[in-house]
Amino acid sequence: RDYQGAPTGTDIECKGWRQEAALRMLNNNLDPDVGENPEELVVYGGTGRAARSWDAYDAIMAELRELDDDETLLVQSGKPVGRFTTHERAPRVLIANSNLVGKWDDWEHFHELEAKGLIMYGQMTAGSWAYIGTQGIIQGTYETLAALADEHYDGDLSGKIVVTGGLGGMGGAQPLAVTMNHGVCIAAEVDEGRIDRRIETGYCMEKTDDLDDAIEKATEAAENGEPYSVGVHINAADMLEGMLDRGFVPDVITDQTSAHDELEGYYPSGYSVEEADHLREEDPETYVEESLDTMARHVRGILDIQDAGAIAFEYGNNIRGQVKEHRDMQHAFDFPGFVPAYIRPLFCQGKGPFRWAALSGNPEDIHRTDEAVVDLFPEKEQLHRWIDLAQEQVEFQGLPSRVCWLGYATDDDGLTERARFALRINELVADGEIEAPIVVTRDHLDAGSVASPNRETEAMRDDSDAIADWPILNALLNCAAGADIVSVHDGGGVGIGNALHANNHVVLDGSELAAEKARRVFTTDPGMGVIRHADAGYDEAIEQAEKSNVAVPMRDRP
Amino acid sequence: RDYQGAPTGTDIECKGWRQEAALRMLNNNLDPDVGENPEELVVYGGTGRAARSWDAYDAIMAELRELDDDETLLVQSGKPVGRFTTHERAPRVLIANSNLVGKWDDWEHFHELEAKGLIMYGQMTAGSWAYIGTQGIIQGTYETLAALADEHYDGDLSGKIVVTGGLGGMGGAQPLAVTMNHGVCIAAEVDEGRIDRRIETGYCMEKTDDLDDAIEKATEAAENGEPYSVGVHINAADMLEGMLDRGFVPDVITDQTSAHDELEGYYPSGYSVEEADHLREEDPETYVEESLDTMARHVRGILDIQDAGAIAFEYGNNIRGQVKEHRDMQHAFDFPGFVPAYIRPLFCQGKGPFRWAALSGNPEDIHRTDEAVVDLFPEKEQLHRWIDLAQEQVEFQGLPSRVCWLGYATDDDGLTERARFALRINELVADGEIEAPIVVTRDHLDAGSVASPNRETEAMRDDSDAIADWPILNALLNCAAGADIVSVHDGGGVGIGNALHANNHVVLDGSELAAEKARRVFTTDPGMGVIRHADAGYDEAIEQAEKSNVAVPMRDRP
Ligand SMILES: NC(=O)c1ccc[n+]([C@@H]2O[C@H](COP(=O)([O-])OP(=O)(O)OC[C@H]3O[C@@H](n4cnc5c(N)ncnc54)[C@H](O)[C@@H]3O)[C@@H](O)[C@H]2O)c1
Ligand SMILES: NC(=O)c1ccc[n+]([C@@H]2O[C@H](COP(=O)([O-])OP(=O)(O)OC[C@H]3O[C@@H](n4cnc5c(N)ncnc54)[C@H](O)[C@@H]3O)[C@@H](O)[C@H]2O)c1
Repeated sequence: RDYQGAPTGTDIECKGWRQEAALRMLNNNLDPDVGENPEELVVYGGTGRAARSWDAYDAIMAELRELDDDETLLVQSGKPVGRFTTHERAPRVLIANSNLVGKWDDWEHFHELEAKGLIMYGQMTAGSWAYIGTQGIIQGTYETLAALADEHYDGDLSGKIVVTGGLGGMGGAQPLAVTMNHGVCIAAEVDEGRIDRRIETGYCMEKTDDLDDAIEKATEAAENGEPYSVGVHINAADMLEGMLDRGFVPDVITDQTSAHDELEGYYPSGYSVEEADHLREEDPETYVEESLDTMARHVRGILDIQDAGAIAFEYGNNIRGQVKEHRDMQHAFDFPGFVPAYIRPLFCQGKGPFRWAALSGNPEDIHRTDEAVVDLFPEKEQLHRWIDLAQEQVEFQGLPSRVCWLGYATDDDGLTERARFALRINELVADGEIEAPIVVTRDHLDAGSVASPNRETEAMRDDSDAIADWPILNALLNCAAGADIVSVHDGGGVGIGNALHANNHVVLDGSELAAEKARRVFTTDPGMGVIRHADAGYDEAIEQAEKSNVAVPMRDRP
Repeated sequence: RDYQGAPTGTDIECKGWRQEAALRMLNNNLDPDVGENPEELVVYGGTGRAARSWDAYDAIMAELRELDDDETLLVQSGKPVGRFTTHERAPRVLIANSNLVGKWDDWEHFHELEAKGLIMYGQMTAGSWAYIGTQGIIQGTYETLAALADEHYDGDLSGKIVVTGGLGGMGGAQPLAVTMNHGVCIAAEVDEGRIDRRIETGYCMEKTDDLDDAIEKATEAAENGEPYSVGVHINAADMLEGMLDRGFVPDVITDQTSAHDELEGYYPSGYSVEEADHLREEDPETYVEESLDTMARHVRGILDIQDAGAIAFEYGNNIRGQVKEHRDMQHAFDFPGFVPAYIRPLFCQGKGPFRWAALSGNPEDIHRTDEAVVDLFPEKEQLHRWIDLAQEQVEFQGLPSRVCWLGYATDDDGLTERARFALRINELVADGEIEAPIVVTRDHLDAGSVASPNRETEAMRDDSDAIADWPILNALLNCAAGADIVSVHDGGGVGIGNALHANNHVVLDGSELAAEKARRVFTTDPGMGVIRHADAGYDEAIEQAEKSNVAVPMRDRP
């Protein structure tokens, strides 16, 4: 197979830009600069795939090329299963990945069905063709650490040491996000190739096999207030124990190994990557037991380091849930998840990781959007700082892209931040100032699109953590509003059965139809975040609803 | 509260017939002639509700009255939570009921959240406002028994005795469906009021407290080849043991008590209804244990009667799953479910319980549709027989309605059976031959709308029983195609965590918009049944796809 990544330029293979956008984004996911293992169709997050098989991929490509402007393609766990006539305002592609009926909704049944070729792990943005590489997560990680710095360290991480694990597709953003906040990062990673990759792309500065060396250099940099990052080639559990043995206590401790998947994501201690991969093949049961044993030590390490004075938070890989369930560690949840700790106030305002890609492949198009966003929101200083940093330090991977956390807040015309931005970009495309259409999408982790009791909806004020009506309504509503791709996934970052979430794409091709879709979808989508959190009783959301005239039926009536 | 049922006539309270249809159907669900316990907002199937609370009901009514033709109302587990601008071709109401994230998707978590007022049990048609009383299920029950008769008794049940349990909202159709097939029915029901209700409405002929009496009269009627039905005021488990003690073996044994819900649906033996209701209040844990103990005896009774020579099948209440899970009865599944036994071949052709109601409230409107259906499908003899029987024996409840199993089969213009029918009715409305719009909907149990491993997707050929991507795609696609209400529910007839299913309504108001929506939705909706079963490898579905040009991407390409 020849992984070219996305086609670029202004000529299209499909019958319209909406279909073309789907085709380019699918292939962008599989760009060797973007996806982690395109050969296996794996995009990121352990086994998150873009298509169920290469045959399914070929069939999707062929369908997209032939799809009419009033047709809709159906994709079931990475396989195209139907095509029906709908209409122009409806989505062109509908996707449902990894969904299982509740009682069967666990890894055991999933793997059984996967082995039979009947289902695929869609992760979040992998199966919905919205992954844009580590650049996609970098801003979220940057924002989270900035929020942490705001709360604990006067808005800056300089002089602070952050310890973490995992330098994969998402976790790889951590060292750069720390240094962008002027801090120091020590990251454990068992797979040396992953460290190399982060160094090549400028996300991490150095690597070492020697923990003492890492601690020494990190401490020195912190003392000098200099940004520094190092990937340590070691198992994370071993590293934390090593730190405790040495009496070394960092300022912040977290983790982004793929602990959500004990078989295909997390590496047990005592094995090299090759040995572990071999064990997984030969004896998956033993692998799982060893993997969970290591996770238990890993969590114990985090808790001990927290006890010693560090700020600890779980970074959305469900490592707490895993050891609570499988190793009966009742105190696993003694450190919080990052959403209630740092992100929920943003969700209440409909803010989330809004992102867009230039279908032209031309970086100039993104620079044009950067200017537009700065221009549109002159008062958002933090956003300007982010755009500057991103332009300086974030290399494009695959289709040039940008991420900004925009929300619901409306202007005098009642347009949300997201809608204002999208309409402006659509004009720039219409005027030819941007070479080819821009596709706008987001993470599944967004304000009103996910139910995930160990992550996005952990510790909701009204205890509604596990209610999954919301992501389903999100998907249906965005479909009604005319998003061009709509998807619903089970699992994702926290593992099968632990979350349900939805995503969407809107293609800004400069047309009136695109403007219409953008105006609606970028109201409904962040709007779901506002009403979901208003319903749960969050004041920030209720205020946002009042300020921006969001209908909240049971509150609006006496 | 004053339960008036649905408003009728040609004047409307809402801004359009689509919204008015939603309002009338919601209230029709709560018509005392239709729903089982409107005071508690309970429609049928144990605790299947139409709205979360009376406050939520009031807010829904107010929202529907004000909803514009380009707005969409969001209902989360029976509570209105949002209203957004979409467009005319989009649905007016989107509903998600009872959905929980997989790992929390069980009765324990559900009841906890329900007690906090955060969730509602939507059953299937209760929470989606598509229930039309026992008349809704009668044809499905009739068809199932006819299919059984076809397979085992030359197409007729005369001289045969069918034993069952439960004369609730759905189960109450059983005696009439048996006698319509010329057979004899003995049904156990603990709640005498329910038997009385079935007798009043002509669904059941007699009642008794005396099992000997029931067996004697039934045997006599069977010997004379006469239709006969009797409700026995007794617990079903006790009745089956009584029959075995007496050496009485019926021809067919099944059950429709609400066994899917051990706390609020099923009655334990040894208590009167009042005593049991009291126990449930005072000591729910003991209730559940006693209830499951009775279920275990009940299933043992069915299996013993099967061993003695009767044809046994489970009628979709998950009684097998319950005792397998909670009483470790590994042989519980030694009798089949009704779907693989009798219904799946119909699903392969996109056939399912298609139904419609006359929003005028005028029975003449339904008679006009009866004529239309006979007229449109002159070759369908069984359908004609059904229409005749229904006109003679099925009393209207609430809004006059009719059910017919129509499917995908296309005519020369490529129109499906369902689309042809809907377009014809839309013309009759346009021409004024039908007084007011007709709303078309269906059961959640339909060809391509449900994942339910113990019922609709039991024993799928490719083992894909538990994959829930399909109902989600069904809902998204019907939303894209322009259905006027779209809903997604967890649970339903088999209990929380055991199924995911979707439904939709289309309002035929005689407009071109309605024709467009009908043409699309009545292609996509049964089409999902064809592609879902084609994907699973059923020949009947593959043939249907070929005959009717349904796109099946991975088969259509080499
Ligand atoms: N904030 C969020 O929403 C969010 C964002 C990103 C990732 N996540 C979660 O974080 C995890 C990582 O995501 P990813 O895309 O980077 O996954 P990935 O599979 O691409 O990378 C995981 C990395 O961890 C390494 N690893 C596994 N076990 C290890 C161990 N015991 N010690 C050291 N290294 C180990 C692997 O070699 C791999 O490089 C996932 O669970 C993901 O769901 C959450
Ligand atoms: N084919 C299908 O798809 C299908 C159709 C209809 C109903 N169902 C299932 O059948 C069940 C019944 O549905 P319903 O709407 O009639 O429910 P319902 O709650 O209205 O009625 C159930 C009836 O069973 C009676 N009952 C309960 N336990 C009993 C016992 N041990 N012995 C005798 N009577 C008992 C109750 O008094 C009640 O009248 C449900 O589980 C439903 O999900 C499946």
